Amino acid sequence: MRSSPPIDRLVASLKRLPGIGEKSATRLAFYMLGAPEANVRELAEAISRLQQDIVLCQLCFDLTDHSPCEVCRDERRDTKLLCVVEEPADLSAIEKSGRYRGRYHVLGGAFAPIDGVGPDELRIAELEARVKSGEIEEVVLATNPNAEGDATAHYLIEALRPTGVKLSRIAFGMPLGGDLEYADHVTVGMSVENRRPL
Amino acid sequence: MRSSPPIDRLVASLKRLPGIGEKSATRLAFYMLGAPEANVRELAEAISRLQQDIVLCQLCFDLTDHSPCEVCRDERRDTKLLCVVEEPADLSAIEKSGRYRGRYHVLGGAFAPIDGVGPDELRIAELEARVKSGEIEEVVLATNPNAEGDATAHYLIEALRPTGVKLSRIAFGMPLGGDLEYADHVTVGMSVENRRPL
Repeated sequence: MRSSPPIDRLVASLKRLPGIGEKSATRLAFYMLGAPEANVRELAEAISRLQQDIVLCQLCFDLTDHSPCEVCRDERRDTKLLCVVEEPADLSAIEKSGRYRGRYHVLGGAFAPIDGVGPDELRIAELEARVKSGEIEEVVLATNPNAEGDATAHYLIEALRPTGVKLSRIAFGMPLGGDLEYADHVTVGMSVENRRPL
Repeated sequence: MRSSPPIDRLVASLKRLPGIGEKSATRLAFYMLGAPEANVRELAEAISRLQQDIVLCQLCFDLTDHSPCEVCRDERRDTKLLCVVEEPADLSAIEKSGRYRGRYHVLGGAFAPIDGVGPDELRIAELEARVKSGEIEEVVLATNPNAEGDATAHYLIEALRPTGVKLSRIAFGMPLGGDLEYADHVTVGMSVENRRPL
């Protein structure tokens, strides 16, 4: 085996990333060798500064460069609407849709009994405190449409119902551009059950 | 749109890499946020040191941390056998196979008339000089099995034939684990034409 330590070291580091195997890592490493020096330096800096520049927002627990985050500081957002997500990446996805103007609460995950993640491991007490503080009128449960996300949503429904806040769950159905023929039957079933009158 | 500069900056840098779009870049960035700090630091260092630590081997033109490269220095390798490849990544692929024990010559690409890459843009003069220096008995043409690689191989056959060196081309046929039903007909055709007596 040939070994060129600088390349091997980079390939080994890249392979630790999710979805990147030996082949992708090698391809990326050779690409970076030939890429403009400024781009490669920028990438290295962005990676090395990421963790030190990021903190948790003390209101919504999103990742931000300073707390409270931009969404929590933005006074044009609807403070009566609170969307509960599992992870910052979920929040990001909703923000990218541009269709939600309220605020967020990041739980930090979903129930996963096998990994020991229950209510105490998620930011549920913080959520209850926010809801009880009074300003919020509706909580949108946007945990993922899978067993863990559904279990978490059901738990939150029970936990928040006594507060009298309005609760909603994001809609499930056929994705846009999807094809009934190729969709899984659970999704198709939900899209029929959740049909909307026209 | 929410914007967290450290994350956005990393996503923008990652998106410049081949095969990484907005979604993969976002997923990688959030992964790096939660990954062990040592791993992330190693990755950043491996990227930033890559270009400064890598030079071209002055014999075979492979990328190496010092010239001549390990393969060219290795006296157990068969110095009578020379394998011609387009790029360092091709050399890497052959080395990983563990089935070749000669030396290499990296052309730096293949003919691409539209991009202005002809014989003068590749390291063909250097190849001829190596072959004429006498020690080499066989040149294995391992340019890729596509139009550019084949054109380059044909040019090299004409250029090297006068030296009297033995010339060979890597074998083309069905990939292992492949299925005739799903293979393209050119590959199937080659695998029949190049059948080997048993």
